[in-house]
Amino acid sequence: MRILILGGDGYLGWPTAMRLAARGHDVMVIDNYLRRTLARETSSLPLIDTPDLAERTAIYRSVSGFEIKVRIGDCADPAVMARVFQEFQPEAAVHYAEQPSAPFSMMGFDQAKLTLTNNLGTTFNLIWSVLQHAPGCHIVKLGTLGEYGTPNIDIEEGWIDIEHRGRSDRFLFPRQGASLYHTTKIMDTDLLWFYVRTYGLRVTDLMQGPVYGLDTKEADADPRLIPNFHYDDIFGTVLNRFLVQAVAGIPLTVYGQGGQTRGFLNLEDTLQCVELALKTPAMPGQLRVLNQYTELFSVNELAARVKRVGGTMGMNVRIAQLPNPRKEREEHYYNVRNQGLIDLGLKPHYLTDDVLGRLLARVFRYRAAIDPTRIQPRVRWS
Amino acid sequence: MRILILGGDGYLGWPTAMRLAARGHDVMVIDNYLRRTLARETSSLPLIDTPDLAERTAIYRSVSGFEIKVRIGDCADPAVMARVFQEFQPEAAVHYAEQPSAPFSMMGFDQAKLTLTNNLGTTFNLIWSVLQHAPGCHIVKLGTLGEYGTPNIDIEEGWIDIEHRGRSDRFLFPRQGASLYHTTKIMDTDLLWFYVRTYGLRVTDLMQGPVYGLDTKEADADPRLIPNFHYDDIFGTVLNRFLVQAVAGIPLTVYGQGGQTRGFLNLEDTLQCVELALKTPAMPGQLRVLNQYTELFSVNELAARVKRVGGTMGMNVRIAQLPNPRKEREEHYYNVRNQGLIDLGLKPHYLTDDVLGRLLARVFRYRAAIDPTRIQPRVRWS
Repeated sequence: MRILILGGDGYLGWPTAMRLAARGHDVMVIDNYLRRTLARETSSLPLIDTPDLAERTAIYRSVSGFEIKVRIGDCADPAVMARVFQEFQPEAAVHYAEQPSAPFSMMGFDQAKLTLTNNLGTTFNLIWSVLQHAPGCHIVKLGTLGEYGTPNIDIEEGWIDIEHRGRSDRFLFPRQGASLYHTTKIMDTDLLWFYVRTYGLRVTDLMQGPVYGLDTKEADADPRLIPNFHYDDIFGTVLNRFLVQAVAGIPLTVYGQGGQTRGFLNLEDTLQCVELALKTPAMPGQLRVLNQYTELFSVNELAARVKRVGGTMGMNVRIAQLPNPRKEREEHYYNVRNQGLIDLGLKPHYLTDDVLGRLLARVFRYRAAIDPTRIQPRVRWS
Repeated sequence: MRILILGGDGYLGWPTAMRLAARGHDVMVIDNYLRRTLARETSSLPLIDTPDLAERTAIYRSVSGFEIKVRIGDCADPAVMARVFQEFQPEAAVHYAEQPSAPFSMMGFDQAKLTLTNNLGTTFNLIWSVLQHAPGCHIVKLGTLGEYGTPNIDIEEGWIDIEHRGRSDRFLFPRQGASLYHTTKIMDTDLLWFYVRTYGLRVTDLMQGPVYGLDTKEADADPRLIPNFHYDDIFGTVLNRFLVQAVAGIPLTVYGQGGQTRGFLNLEDTLQCVELALKTPAMPGQLRVLNQYTELFSVNELAARVKRVGGTMGMNVRIAQLPNPRKEREEHYYNVRNQGLIDLGLKPHYLTDDVLGRLLARVFRYRAAIDPTRIQPRVRWS
């Protein structure tokens, strides 16, 4: 299959590109290095410097023999995308090309504006690129479980049947995010759903929880193929941050009560989920929403696990409860269905002590690179 | 009160400005004439050419003695709005500064992009102008009943309590629009609600139905004060279009089955509703949603009324059922609560035969200006 990956330089985009190429697909990535630019501007560089896409793909080719085509450009630019679509004629497009940080989106006007413009701009442009140049192309869009927020009812997979005063109808599940970033993802879904039902696009919206990990079969072949691993307060996901804090002897930064519960998954399972979504595409006119996580943990539970497993490895892991810099519920009901991807064949990799131990050991190898100034919360909207 | 009107040159913005000035408020309007530009580009000029804001406000001052301050500029431009806010320090802002046409938003990529960028850009910029320069300012935002679409359940005023598998919570009422324009208004509401709950903004979102009419007490003082009255397929609302068609002897263009039901209101009642919303502002941290219409009619009912009343005035009114150029339900359940504005004191002006007759007579005076080429649907997305 010809698969275009938007945002192919990212934490998820790069491992996805390698995996799909290794499966024999014809893969092209496009990226404008926005996340690298923003990480530099906010002093949030990843644990290990990663080569650019030209170099990464050359290394990957030399160790695996698989080719990944690279285009550098802005996915929100119609001319750039028209050229890519006409040339490559993708049968599927995996859309990761968004500003992915909630704290970044809350830093101020400029960062909020960039998040709104970039995220809606890339999604809108992808929709139109497909309409104009590749009408049958299956869009696989990375959404987030954060679109649902933390409602007091069970979270269904995208859709809900509502009974109201003796009548009923089916609707998109109500969504309410805890940052502007999350709000732009809600708006992405609104935009996609409008064009899906109007022009018969085929879209899978993957409502993903926080991802952890830095190993994939392909990345492990050469240290320079490592995904860009952020552990800072802005671009890092919570478990990755805890792993680095444990290794560096910095107290794990639990925000507020720590009862915030989320649906987590291993990077390896993100790759599985995207592959499964591609293998069984959405139908024309279908917005298929799949909730993408394998296990629910509260922040406290995660911290306790890292402390325990780190302890068995001789690390003295402490936990610090900080005033929550975010505006979010710290104790809440949370029950999220995730049968869709299981039905498609997902075989979860659970967060066992063994998995945690291997992650800690992997991060330990890079401990000299850890910069403690990137770890405390620098953005507040509580 | 110091009231800033964004989009003060529009069909609703201009009469609102005159009304609020006549009530003794300190009124400033800002507009970049976008709607005039787009109407010219799409051959959709209004029935009567209207003077620009400098001239309109001078005429209004000479006939009424009331002053309306004018600024020409783009409400999506941060520098423009910062200057206006710092200078004028508005206590309330009425936000009409959006591309208001569903068919325009469906013409193609450029028009869709403009609608998305402009509508979210102005709303986003208004939010930040208030946050940065006038934190207590009450935002009165023109939404649309079209945000709700035509669900098979009763439409509440913005919010709904959902019971699901034995638990319950309150959510924004589910929304699903029939054009990109409507979708951008849904996204506006998402954006406003995020910033309302995060930073305690005060926002009233008026979910308004199609407006008809061209008389207001202030506009009637001089023919050059007439609101810009569009009767074309792109910027005209349905009843205004029917009035012109009846006068011009062109069959009324009913799209499809004509069972499309909407909540209508007289231009005079729009002014009342906006005044009422300003008089009792939303609380800090409140997104108050009010459904703004006075009567439900199907398109067929409207056409039949215009035919009947036109007939009594000697007009030979015919009705033409055209293939629907839009993708929308043509027969559907529609029950929309509108108690909020009644409770605030709205005294509806209903669409009586007398009112219709006076509107037809008013349009008749301008019959020489009617251009029949602007009346048949030119944009299709069915």
